[in-house]
Amino acid sequence: MQELLRRDADRIISDAIRAVQPDEAVARALKGREFPGRLVLVAAGKAAWQMAKAAYDCLGDRIEDGVVVTKYDHIKGPISHFVMKEAGHPVPDENSFAGTQAALDLVGNLTEKDTVLFLLSGGGSALFEKPKVPGPVLQDITGQLLSSGADIVEMNTIRKRLSAVKGGRFAEICAPAKVFQVILSDILGDPLDMIASGPACPDSTTCEMAQAIARKYELRMPDGARALLAEETPKSLSNVETQITGSVRELCAAAAKSCEALGYEPVLLTDLLCCQAKEAGSFLASVACTHAQSGKPKAFIAGGETVVKLTGKGLGGRNQELALAAAEGIAGLQNVCVFSVGSDGTDGPTDAAGGYADGDTKEALLAAGRTISDTLRENDAYHALGLVDGLIFTGPTGTNVNDVAVALVK
Amino acid sequence: MQELLRRDADRIISDAIRAVQPDEAVARALKGREFPGRLVLVAAGKAAWQMAKAAYDCLGDRIEDGVVVTKYDHIKGPISHFVMKEAGHPVPDENSFAGTQAALDLVGNLTEKDTVLFLLSGGGSALFEKPKVPGPVLQDITGQLLSSGADIVEMNTIRKRLSAVKGGRFAEICAPAKVFQVILSDILGDPLDMIASGPACPDSTTCEMAQAIARKYELRMPDGARALLAEETPKSLSNVETQITGSVRELCAAAAKSCEALGYEPVLLTDLLCCQAKEAGSFLASVACTHAQSGKPKAFIAGGETVVKLTGKGLGGRNQELALAAAEGIAGLQNVCVFSVGSDGTDGPTDAAGGYADGDTKEALLAAGRTISDTLRENDAYHALGLVDGLIFTGPTGTNVNDVAVALVK
Repeated sequence: MQELLRRDADRIISDAIRAVQPDEAVARALKGREFPGRLVLVAAGKAAWQMAKAAYDCLGDRIEDGVVVTKYDHIKGPISHFVMKEAGHPVPDENSFAGTQAALDLVGNLTEKDTVLFLLSGGGSALFEKPKVPGPVLQDITGQLLSSGADIVEMNTIRKRLSAVKGGRFAEICAPAKVFQVILSDILGDPLDMIASGPACPDSTTCEMAQAIARKYELRMPDGARALLAEETPKSLSNVETQITGSVRELCAAAAKSCEALGYEPVLLTDLLCCQAKEAGSFLASVACTHAQSGKPKAFIAGGETVVKLTGKGLGGRNQELALAAAEGIAGLQNVCVFSVGSDGTDGPTDAAGGYADGDTKEALLAAGRTISDTLRENDAYHALGLVDGLIFTGPTGTNVNDVAVALVK
Repeated sequence: MQELLRRDADRIISDAIRAVQPDEAVARALKGREFPGRLVLVAAGKAAWQMAKAAYDCLGDRIEDGVVVTKYDHIKGPISHFVMKEAGHPVPDENSFAGTQAALDLVGNLTEKDTVLFLLSGGGSALFEKPKVPGPVLQDITGQLLSSGADIVEMNTIRKRLSAVKGGRFAEICAPAKVFQVILSDILGDPLDMIASGPACPDSTTCEMAQAIARKYELRMPDGARALLAEETPKSLSNVETQITGSVRELCAAAAKSCEALGYEPVLLTDLLCCQAKEAGSFLASVACTHAQSGKPKAFIAGGETVVKLTGKGLGGRNQELALAAAEGIAGLQNVCVFSVGSDGTDGPTDAAGGYADGDTKEALLAAGRTISDTLRENDAYHALGLVDGLIFTGPTGTNVNDVAVALVK
């Protein structure tokens, strides 16, 4: 039974991660879609190259021209005759600006019959940028925000107003052409205007919010920049259609589909998980225990991004902690397992993608001289799970849409 | 909408708690049951009087005689001509022993056609006792265990072997008569032999375990007592039938039934919840958010007993912390609420039974000058929820089968 459970888990993990690969995700988003007029491509973000490649594989020379802006070392080869630009992240540099200008040149002469295929992924905030202030000023403000502890929402609220392309402004520039935006989401709940600062999304932040943040962190900026905080961003855009793909929601949906194919009734609990990793593990273990005697194979799925409170100096990651904590609750049950993986294949500062626990894990750990509670206190899930075949390895996956945890009852 | 949600919540809470009242629970367990021969009643535990009263209301003078042993101040009046005994808890006293002896006298002359109706509730370990060692020795050992930090499982493992009635030995004494045992459970997962140390349950603990615990806590005990640790308890009993009633499982089932009657599709997540209260609140909020847009009214139910880590000096309880933490996750949603109550009507050291939060709670707290994170750090959920109509009051309910938390999506 234990071996069957592990085999099912490995299958579910591989199916789920496969479904949120940029290429699969983009192909899904483009499937059956028609573009009547001219079609140009702009791809920005850490997955820009893969997304552009997938779009080209789908649409071929229907794409008249393209610009790809991504991180250094992320271009894997030429795609048609597209302009390829590698640039700075998380702090934008001259290459970011040059790549973005190339995109703006591309979309400048389109008509209302034409379409900009805009492929956006995480990291786009830094990579897709045309500052309304001099480059060094923008870099200085970004640096101040990063070091002040501002969160991503605060950071983007400021950056949108210092930018000619963020906060919906890129879509304004594309007009009258249509924008078909495909977003590979790495932010929970998919707040569209926050992903890469929403170059083609109506902006929900306001000038007042931006000014309050500048006061809160006592940002130093020249008068010209400060004046920009008072210029409002578009609140509605009529030329944009958006398709989110490869989000944690699709990761969960793909896991559910895979579970179903393996004979489990899938139950999606949430795709917005954000509590402590080990407590989520305990909760999922409780759910599994309650249903362990039901006689019906079930899979409880929880996607999101849990957090870890560091109390020790061990090695681990949030997915490994979740699985290890669950091992306590499911100890002794022969038909249950709990596992959790990061879709990027990297859980915390480890080479594992996540952790796996079944009803024997607790006893196996004890036999190896480890207790679950001590290991969690030391944040050392990696070494403990490594002793009991409880690590999941996928290697880097080329995508990043948060994590998925599953409790299987066979 | 918010008012409808609160009205639904109040209804669900009242229905769920009503179903696990000792009287309802006992009536349910006795429904349609026949007792051919003579019938005597033995009731022990904190809810013994209510359980005996309910049984008498069902069966009347079919019950030939009875003995009720409960805590001081827990006898609410005479029942037929039953012997009533109030006694010491958590440390047993002479009245515990006298009451138990009266029960043993009652069951001593029965035949195999006869039945002992044995009604057991929490607290029975101390209240139902015939020590095999002198009273003061037993009291001393119990005191050592209580002060040493031994858990309930360890405590009962020792006590069973020092007792003539625990660990299945009472059922042995009742033989050849049958024992129909009705248990009101307050231990998660209903480990039968641990509830009141299982006077009519085959014992799963062993002499080796008992001796290891004595060594672990360096228990001081006379040689006679030490010798008893080596006498084994019954591992099987053929004359006992057991019905668990009024457990947290029934609390959850009743909540589910009530939710269904109100138009929600009930989803039982678990009845074994044991993680941190505030993290459970976050998890439930994530579940509710994920399903908030589905357009289908749903109720996610999690029963059990969460824990609170004290970091502040405020006032609150685990149910209030769960609801308060959930308020963060559901903030802004108009069709969602999360609430949690203790079935005994007392959450922590407060006069509230639990807490309630909806999509407006976070903002209402901010308007009242409180943040959720600071309040949780101070463990001051009671005062904060009190400011925003977020406390649930039921008064003492007369039962105690742990807690139930519900996330409603309307």
